[in-house]
Formats: sequence, structure tokens, C-alpha cells
Amino acid sequence: MEALGLRCVNCDQAYDLGLYYRCKQCDFPLEVIYNTPVRGEPIEIPGNPGLWYYQPCLPPVAKEDQISLGEGGTPLLHAKRLGELLGLPNLYIKDEGQNPTGSFKDRPTAMGVSFARSLGVETVVVSSTGNAGASLAAYAARAGMRAFIFVTDRTPPAKLIQMAIHGANIVPVRGSLSDAYWLAYQAALRWQWMDLTSTFLSPYPVEGDKTVAYELYKQLGRAPDWILIPVSVGPLLVGIYKGFLELQALGLVDRLPRMVASQAAACAPIAKAFQSGAVDVHAWDGSSETVAGGIADPLRGYETDGIYTLRIVQKSGGIATASEDEEILKATRNLAALEGLFCEPTGAVSVAALNGLRLHTEFAPDQLVVCVATGHGLKQTRVFEQMIEFPAAIDPTLDAFAKLLE
Amino acid sequence: MEALGLRCVNCDQAYDLGLYYRCKQCDFPLEVIYNTPVRGEPIEIPGNPGLWYYQPCLPPVAKEDQISLGEGGTPLLHAKRLGELLGLPNLYIKDEGQNPTGSFKDRPTAMGVSFARSLGVETVVVSSTGNAGASLAAYAARAGMRAFIFVTDRTPPAKLIQMAIHGANIVPVRGSLSDAYWLAYQAALRWQWMDLTSTFLSPYPVEGDKTVAYELYKQLGRAPDWILIPVSVGPLLVGIYKGFLELQALGLVDRLPRMVASQAAACAPIAKAFQSGAVDVHAWDGSSETVAGGIADPLRGYETDGIYTLRIVQKSGGIATASEDEEILKATRNLAALEGLFCEPTGAVSVAALNGLRLHTEFAPDQLVVCVATGHGLKQTRVFEQMIEFPAAIDPTLDAFAKLLE
Repeated sequence: MEALGLRCVNCDQAYDLGLYYRCKQCDFPLEVIYNTPVRGEPIEIPGNPGLWYYQPCLPPVAKEDQISLGEGGTPLLHAKRLGELLGLPNLYIKDEGQNPTGSFKDRPTAMGVSFARSLGVETVVVSSTGNAGASLAAYAARAGMRAFIFVTDRTPPAKLIQMAIHGANIVPVRGSLSDAYWLAYQAALRWQWMDLTSTFLSPYPVEGDKTVAYELYKQLGRAPDWILIPVSVGPLLVGIYKGFLELQALGLVDRLPRMVASQAAACAPIAKAFQSGAVDVHAWDGSSETVAGGIADPLRGYETDGIYTLRIVQKSGGIATASEDEEILKATRNLAALEGLFCEPTGAVSVAALNGLRLHTEFAPDQLVVCVATGHGLKQTRVFEQMIEFPAAIDPTLDAFAKLLE
Repeated sequence: MEALGLRCVNCDQAYDLGLYYRCKQCDFPLEVIYNTPVRGEPIEIPGNPGLWYYQPCLPPVAKEDQISLGEGGTPLLHAKRLGELLGLPNLYIKDEGQNPTGSFKDRPTAMGVSFARSLGVETVVVSSTGNAGASLAAYAARAGMRAFIFVTDRTPPAKLIQMAIHGANIVPVRGSLSDAYWLAYQAALRWQWMDLTSTFLSPYPVEGDKTVAYELYKQLGRAPDWILIPVSVGPLLVGIYKGFLELQALGLVDRLPRMVASQAAACAPIAKAFQSGAVDVHAWDGSSETVAGGIADPLRGYETDGIYTLRIVQKSGGIATASEDEEILKATRNLAALEGLFCEPTGAVSVAALNGLRLHTEFAPDQLVVCVATGHGLKQTRVFEQMIEFPAAIDPTLDAFAKLLE
């Protein structure tokens, strides 16, 4: 596989592998296209760490520009106990919280920062609810590049500290995430920086998301029947589906997974469009306040990104769901208490979405189901501080403990 | 390699592979012994996830009792930028923060919980400053076992939340970590539970620590010249050295690393003994208040554990160092700002210890040096909250941002 250039996902307009963002003709996202590989050609596996293990399937980056913190290679855990509770014997969790900065964002960031470097760009920017910013700060530090992170006042403290300790320039912006988005993009255009905001703005980060598909194939030897993914704009979902299309073209899998875009009910523009059978996705009105803050994106001004994700969901034969906060918190607690897997509420939206998936006519309980848990629980412990009661201290004697036991 | 039984590290008394703690004759730690492998015999690599990849080198655990969250397999990162600053071109960081619960403890816990299960023990306990407790809570949840975590009032909130959300029984104990230690041990003896406290109390967890050595060998193809490790009691240090002894017996490495026990000056019983040339380690008096709370263990009542670690340090030709909090915080910030690696202050004590190592007569700047970073920064963000200044919010306009840039 060799990257040939960029192409608009809507109108097919072609571009070279340069510093482009959206299509200049129709404003839809661009994607990286590759030559068609010889059928059955094996994937080369160089001994590189992290994302660069998949180098032959990614846009070209010279070895000296490949930045890695050991992202990817995350475990796929068979969720036996949760599966028993839900009656799903073949339920698996892909634990993306084990990435270097604690979320899947390290995949698109490793790709984006490295590609920026290979283009000679020395400053990278991002607008972020937190995880993408924390990730960019870390990779820019490792690369010795300057980073600007545009955030809103809703960013959890732990994520702000991640950004700050990595030496990134934090730019708090008054308004919504969409305001931060537009300011970051304008700044990138004005100074020729690279904007790696984890939407479809730049066509390169999604190539990092794609590696989840390659790993799932390695771990399962096949494509899952369903893949459930917490979705804000959707690059992780689109990237994973793209990866399976490539694996199919390589002759390694014979069928494709159905993709489930899992949103929080408080901000669910894609699920709303899907459920009403609409072709267009509209910006979300209202507060969008949810425990799953990492995917609360109203899409204002980049609705075409939502349309693109909706099209991929439909093409895959999948669905888009919206879960209430209560279901999301229950999914988070079930994962932690039954599987030993602590993810932030945003990361558990894929597990909450199983409720919606079970109603689907194509769904059968014995199918192979993978939920992607996108971020570590340590990123957002304060949600749980009020929910958990800690017992009072006891004296250090066996009697005191025996009394507690009763 | 096949596990044959247990042996006292001091008086050689033999035991079978059962539920034993310290030597009944001399109160020193027990260790698992193996038959001598045929020289040159390759390490079998089954396709198991996590720790069980190394199954042939570990105590026997049937497949159905092997509990894993995908621990281990952590990246070894070449620290080019930090190495330049320090004049150490071959400096590497082993990032143990990428383990499932965010610290290296997942290795000994995976081993310990699985072995407890294989012995039919259904309740596991631990006394912990935080990380071992968070880890045990997660693995016990995955195994469906009952867990009691004995903690002090100094445990950081994020770690308490980890324990609670995994459904473990938290037992806050008045007094020091040593008080929690003794209460947990007495309870384990009384009810025949397994105490997996991450000292040398149980001989099994250290076998999980050992796998770091196997990974370093796989990643480097040789033993490092020096391995620096944050040390409280020392099982990680002792486990890694044991692993290299086995790799040497297997004919895979031809020499052994020198081990550096890296302590915080505020609580440094092993470093104090080493620097005074003593044979014995004494319990630490005083407050032991430090930013590196994860290794602040006064060793009161289990001083023999410290003696054992001191012996291994000396046997390896290594040293024991003590770093001031200021150096530890500086090391933490350097790792984050230069390498993109955010670890909790405890985890960076190994990097702080480079200051002491450089004074050693056997040290040369071009040697291969590995610092183990033991835990993720997200575990202890509050340390940094007061140290970092966040800028004021700006309006979402390019003009406002341009003004900020100047």
C-alpha cells in the first residue's frame, strides 16, 4: 500500500499530500487514498514501536520524523462477566485508555504530529474538550514542536494539567467548543500551522485512528459483527471502517463490520439524524451538558463532518444511538466492577449503546461485538467523587476489623 | 523453566508452592525457584495476552485461572531530548504508566490474583499507599473475587476512587502504612486469605515484576548497564534482577545490569544503609512526607525486606540513592516537557536518581541506562494544580489571539 494523495469524500476532487484541510469546492472532508494493493499481499511488520508498526499502511513519514510514545497495541479484553449480565457471550472491550496519555487520541496525534514534522511545519494547534489537547501537548513535547491548545471552560482539571505539564500553550476561549474550533482553524490558516483538531479538518489524523482496525484483525483474525464507538464528530468510527475496507482489499478479511455511532442523548446530532431517516445532520441546539463531555460537540459550522460519519454508518449497515447520562454512568460502573476496566464516562458510551443495539433486527446475541472504551477513568475522577462513599477509619486492630466485617 | 517450590532468600529453607508468606525460621522473604533450564533454550511465546505471554517463566497457573487486563508490554522510549540535556545519549525510559490501572503494580497483581485463584483462595487483601490497592481492586473485579484494601489517610483521591469504583472494600486504618500492613497481614492469616501486599510478604507477586526484565531483553537485545527504579521496599528491583539472572541462565544475556535503588530523601532507609556501608537496614524515623508518597515506606516491622533489597543492590554492583523532593519534581517536569511522558512524582524518582548515579566511578555517559517510570501522572494531578498557572480566557477572535501571541 502506498499513499497517492488526498480526495474529497463527497465530490472526489483530488489533492496532493500537502497541508490541506477541507475540500475547496464543497467543504466536505478530505481523505488519504492509497493504490490498490495486490490481493493477498501480507502486511509488512517492521519492528517499529507504536503506530509506526503500521507504517506501510500509513501516509509516508521518514523515520526521523516518526514521533511515538508507544501508542496503540492496546488490549482487547473478553468481557465475560459483563457479557453474562447482558446475555452477550462474545462481547469484547478494546481498552484505549492504555494509550500513553490515557485515550485513543494518541493514535491520530502521533500520525498528525509526525506528518506535520515531515512537511516542515513547526507549530501544531488543536481545539479540544480535553483528550486531544492532552495528547497533542505530549507529542509536541516529544517532537520539540510548539503547540497551542484551544479549550473551553468546561475542560476537566486533570486534562488541563496534562496539557500544562507538557509545556503546551493553553488558550482558553470564551464560548462553546465551536468557538474554540473556529479560532484554532483561523490561526492555523493565518500562520500556516497545522490544525490537528480531531474532527475531519485535517485528513491525516484519521489515518492513525485506522490502526484500531488492523489491531482488531490481528487480535480476532476476522472483523467483528458490530463495533460500537463513542462518537462526537466521528473520525474514530470512520477511521476504523476505512481500516477494514483496506483489510478487505488486502484479502485479509472477507466481510466488514457494522458500525454503531454511540452518542450521549444530551448532544446527539448524528443519532438524531439517523433515527429520523434524514440525509443531513444539523448542528445541535441546547446545553449539551453531559457526563460524557468528551463527545459533546454541537458540530456548529462543520455539519458536513457529521453527514460524512452518518453516511459511513449507513454504508456499513450500522446504527447511531443516543444514551442517557444515567445509562452511561451505569455502563461505566459495570465495566469497572465486573471487568476491572475503569474508563471515563465518555469512554463507556459504547457500552451504554448496547441497549440500543439489542433492538436492531440484524442483531443476534451470539454475534461478535466490540465496544471501544476510548479513555481512562483517571482522566475524570471528579465525576465519581460525589457518587462514592468512603468508610470511616478504624483502629489498627483485628478486633476493629472483625467488627467491620460483620 | 519449571517452578519447583519456594526457598528462603536468607537461610535456604524450602517450601512447596502454597500459601506461605515469610520464612518460618528467620522471617526473611521467600522466593520461587525454578529448575535450571537447558542453556540456550528459547523462551516459548504463546499468544496469550498480558503477563501470561511469559507463562513458561512463571509459577504454574491453569489457563482458566489466568487473570489479565493486558498488563505489561509497555514501551521503552529512547529519551533523546532529556538525554541531550543530561549528556546521556543512551538514556531510555520504561513507561509503566501505560499499564491497565496506570502503574507497574498490575504485573505483580496479575500474578498474585491468578495464583490465589489457582490455590482456591477467594479473598485477596493488600495494604497500600494507593497504586497496589487500585490495581488489586481492578484485578479482583475481573476475577470476581472479594478484595480488602487497607489504606492510610494519605492515599490520593484518584487512587481511592479507582479502588471504590472497582467494588473493592476499602479499609481506612488510623496510623502509618506499617499499621495498615500489619492489620492486613493479621486478617489474611486469620481468615486464610491471600495478602498480596507489594513487599516481599507473598513470594508470588515479585514473579510478575520479573517480566520487566524479559521485556527489556526483547526491546534491547541485551541487558542495560544500569537500571534505575523507584524503591519503597524493593520487589520491582529484586524482580527485575531475578529476571536477568534467569535470562543469563537461559543463555540469552551474557551479563547482568547494575541496579539503582532510587528513594526519596524524606524516606530512604535503604539508601541510608547503603551510603553508610551498613549490612542492616533500619526502620525510618520521622515524618516521611514527600511528593513521592508511593515509595514512602518506613519498613517498620519488615526491615528484613529492606536488607534483602540492599543485598541485591550490592550483589549487582549497583547503588542506592536518595533524591530531594525538588529534584523529583524537576525530573517529573523534564520528562513531561522534553519527552511527552507524564508520570507521577514517585515514578520520576528513577530519573532524579541519575544525579546520584553520575557520581559513581563505574558510570560512563555513553552507557545504556534505563529508568523505570512506575506510574502515570494522572494518578496524582493535584500535586501540580498549585504549581501551574492557567492563562485567562480570551474572546474567540483572531485579534484577541494575535494580541496573546505577542
